[in-house]
Amino acid sequence: MALAAAVHPPHIDETIAELKAIFGDRLSTAAAVREQHGKDISYHEAHLPDAVVFAESTAEVQKVVQICARYRTPIIAFGTGTSLEGHISAPQGGISVDVSRMNQVLQVNEADLDVVVQPGVTRKQLNEYIRATGLFFPIDPGADASIGGMTSTRASGTNAVRYGTMRENVLALQVVTADGRIMRLGRRARKSAAGYDLVKLFVGSEGTLGIITEITLRLYGIPEAMAAATCAFESLEGAVNTVIQTIQSGVPIARIELLDDIQVDSVNRYSKMSLPVKNTLFLEFHGTEASVKEQAEMVQAIASDNGGGSFAFTTQAEERTRMWQARHDAAWANKALKAGWGMWATDVCVPISRLAECILATKNDIVALDLVAPIVGHVGDGNFHLTIMVDPDDPTCLKRADALNDRMVARALELGGTCTGEHGVGLGKIKYLYAEHGESVSLMRAVKRAIDPDNIMNPGKIFGPLN
Amino acid sequence: MALAAAVHPPHIDETIAELKAIFGDRLSTAAAVREQHGKDISYHEAHLPDAVVFAESTAEVQKVVQICARYRTPIIAFGTGTSLEGHISAPQGGISVDVSRMNQVLQVNEADLDVVVQPGVTRKQLNEYIRATGLFFPIDPGADASIGGMTSTRASGTNAVRYGTMRENVLALQVVTADGRIMRLGRRARKSAAGYDLVKLFVGSEGTLGIITEITLRLYGIPEAMAAATCAFESLEGAVNTVIQTIQSGVPIARIELLDDIQVDSVNRYSKMSLPVKNTLFLEFHGTEASVKEQAEMVQAIASDNGGGSFAFTTQAEERTRMWQARHDAAWANKALKAGWGMWATDVCVPISRLAECILATKNDIVALDLVAPIVGHVGDGNFHLTIMVDPDDPTCLKRADALNDRMVARALELGGTCTGEHGVGLGKIKYLYAEHGESVSLMRAVKRAIDPDNIMNPGKIFGPLN
Repeated sequence: MALAAAVHPPHIDETIAELKAIFGDRLSTAAAVREQHGKDISYHEAHLPDAVVFAESTAEVQKVVQICARYRTPIIAFGTGTSLEGHISAPQGGISVDVSRMNQVLQVNEADLDVVVQPGVTRKQLNEYIRATGLFFPIDPGADASIGGMTSTRASGTNAVRYGTMRENVLALQVVTADGRIMRLGRRARKSAAGYDLVKLFVGSEGTLGIITEITLRLYGIPEAMAAATCAFESLEGAVNTVIQTIQSGVPIARIELLDDIQVDSVNRYSKMSLPVKNTLFLEFHGTEASVKEQAEMVQAIASDNGGGSFAFTTQAEERTRMWQARHDAAWANKALKAGWGMWATDVCVPISRLAECILATKNDIVALDLVAPIVGHVGDGNFHLTIMVDPDDPTCLKRADALNDRMVARALELGGTCTGEHGVGLGKIKYLYAEHGESVSLMRAVKRAIDPDNIMNPGKIFGPLN
Repeated sequence: MALAAAVHPPHIDETIAELKAIFGDRLSTAAAVREQHGKDISYHEAHLPDAVVFAESTAEVQKVVQICARYRTPIIAFGTGTSLEGHISAPQGGISVDVSRMNQVLQVNEADLDVVVQPGVTRKQLNEYIRATGLFFPIDPGADASIGGMTSTRASGTNAVRYGTMRENVLALQVVTADGRIMRLGRRARKSAAGYDLVKLFVGSEGTLGIITEITLRLYGIPEAMAAATCAFESLEGAVNTVIQTIQSGVPIARIELLDDIQVDSVNRYSKMSLPVKNTLFLEFHGTEASVKEQAEMVQAIASDNGGGSFAFTTQAEERTRMWQARHDAAWANKALKAGWGMWATDVCVPISRLAECILATKNDIVALDLVAPIVGHVGDGNFHLTIMVDPDDPTCLKRADALNDRMVARALELGGTCTGEHGVGLGKIKYLYAEHGESVSLMRAVKRAIDPDNIMNPGKIFGPLN
């Protein structure tokens, strides 16, 4: 990953001096720390912050914001650094506020199926913490991301087809706004018609409206029964049509994921699986014993009609975990496939009736552009991902990758879809945001200006320059 | 309902003259028409608009907005006039834009389970229109409201516990903004991480940010099997605890509605039912034959543990329709109970673990205040309604009703709930909005000012005066 030339905000020295006086050792200007906070796991050029502050409370986040606000110094929130579109980089310099030490689960309301967490809690940590309650939190992007980051990018994952995304599962927030106020958005009630939905406005705002310091999430009961299976298909169309017909039939499927043959091969190598190297669905059913059985039979019938083989069920919990870990490790599997190559992860989401068309045309593009780019997708939502492998020694490779991304996004938009289903805009998809939303981006920008008039909150992201 | 003194915006004559030149007969200043558009079905004081325009297209709505914007004349959108908190009244005068003639279903995307409609389409009309497709739209506030109005108030209804509210079911919008631009918000894709969620910002904004001219909604397959039942309880606690335990157990119940004994009595009289006059749950199960049977058995077991009787199933579709019609007509049943009395409908929503406490304390208040106020609720969401009956000949009655509402809202907020689960703020709950959201109302106001700087879109609603 390239490192961009440093940009320093005008009053960065005063900002750092004031912060240092408060945070002492918990403020760092060391190159290694700044690098870790300016580079995500994407292929984007890195931009380092001028300093990193490790905040340990909402009050401390407020202090950072108040000082930065006074000097109009940019602030970038940092959770685990696993975002994919340059969200955590600092193209205008400034202060990275690392909230990973704010990692307490504050309140578990078992009876109400909700939980209040600090932003540095990771999704796996949360599920460990609440395991004994019989509840779970379903949203699972590939990485063990922080809940704060997942909220900021409107993350989803393999369970979204049944349980929704962060959009549907964040009930309330505590935030520090650009002017340094602490405020609560939303309530624990399941629904409300009281005023503008500020929670949904902050979910997916990528740190551009404020810093999230507490999140109230919905939880779900761990189903009485769960069954997972893989199913290999003769054709990609067959696999995709199975997904479409399953959704249309109303089967409340919990997970339905596609790995194309290239991706299956890669996963086999990395995760030591022995799946047939074919376009494959990973499926999971949740419910009572009887209902899981019935759902699986219905989907097996649909799959068989579409050239799918018999479901290979994983009956043990450990086996199921291993199967989904392999799915979550798909990106790492791809990275291992081409040692030393870069990895450009991108995603789009289309209405499900256009999914087969969109994936097949993208596969043609991959061949035409002579790229290695396994496809994996949360296809129940119409969402799929490409991991485009980028050879650092081939100067044309990055250009071809860029062309592939361009074509895929243009196609998705033409089909009524979106330029990103779950990765977000960050620095990487700014031009596509304008292509997708046209005129209405002006409303987003008006909202941004109204809430952060000095543009100190993660400036440069989502919109590019604001003036 | 009282009629407030008329307020006229400064340039109303010029506004009306320009509109008249374009709309001719489709602009009315007749008292009867203005009254119909200034009074909703609530107990709020009515404020009449200066004129009503019947728009027939997005382009016509744009014309109205452009003219009003030039003169800074208030604009209030009107669908069916069935809102409950004074949403459609014109406290600052201005133009009511009636969109009821924009009532076309524009596009049914069966394969994608979505539909594009004009704002004047009503929920029943939509379900009639799509019946042959095997799909349905689940959101069902009591009235046969317009989809535009339901979107604006973030409506829900009896199916929300399973299918969500308008918040979860509006995918995309076309709107005319306060400066007269037509723009599209959101896409048909099921999820997106591309920029701020403007769709969710407009859903529930009660006409204060723009006029909605097209709505893209999610649809669902009509379940293979549906079973509905009533279940009478010895105590209100038993009924409420059944709801809580059902939700906690993860049964995917489609509807679970509470009618207290007073409400059952009222429904029996109005809808010619013969239910035992007890606290009663109305339930509905959706799924396959086997799954519906299994769900019903699980909930019956929970109910029996809580003092509930045997489920009385409605096996015929017509019988089921009649049962839910009776539930939807609860407000009218109450109105019939006290001929000539006014009806003050109010609702709150609390975390479900606090529901029994909140309802029981409210029942005590009703007795203490010597009021007639049947309770009915979408209790699966923690949401319940009071219909407070107001005797126009008793000058203290309205005051006591107000006191009851005050106490109920204060209690709901104290329990972590919201001042309105589905009716909205309008004119009726402004003070509660501030109590509920505190500091963060300033963000809502900032957003409002950014998008509608001259405050011409439904001014006075949600926030009260903005300066």
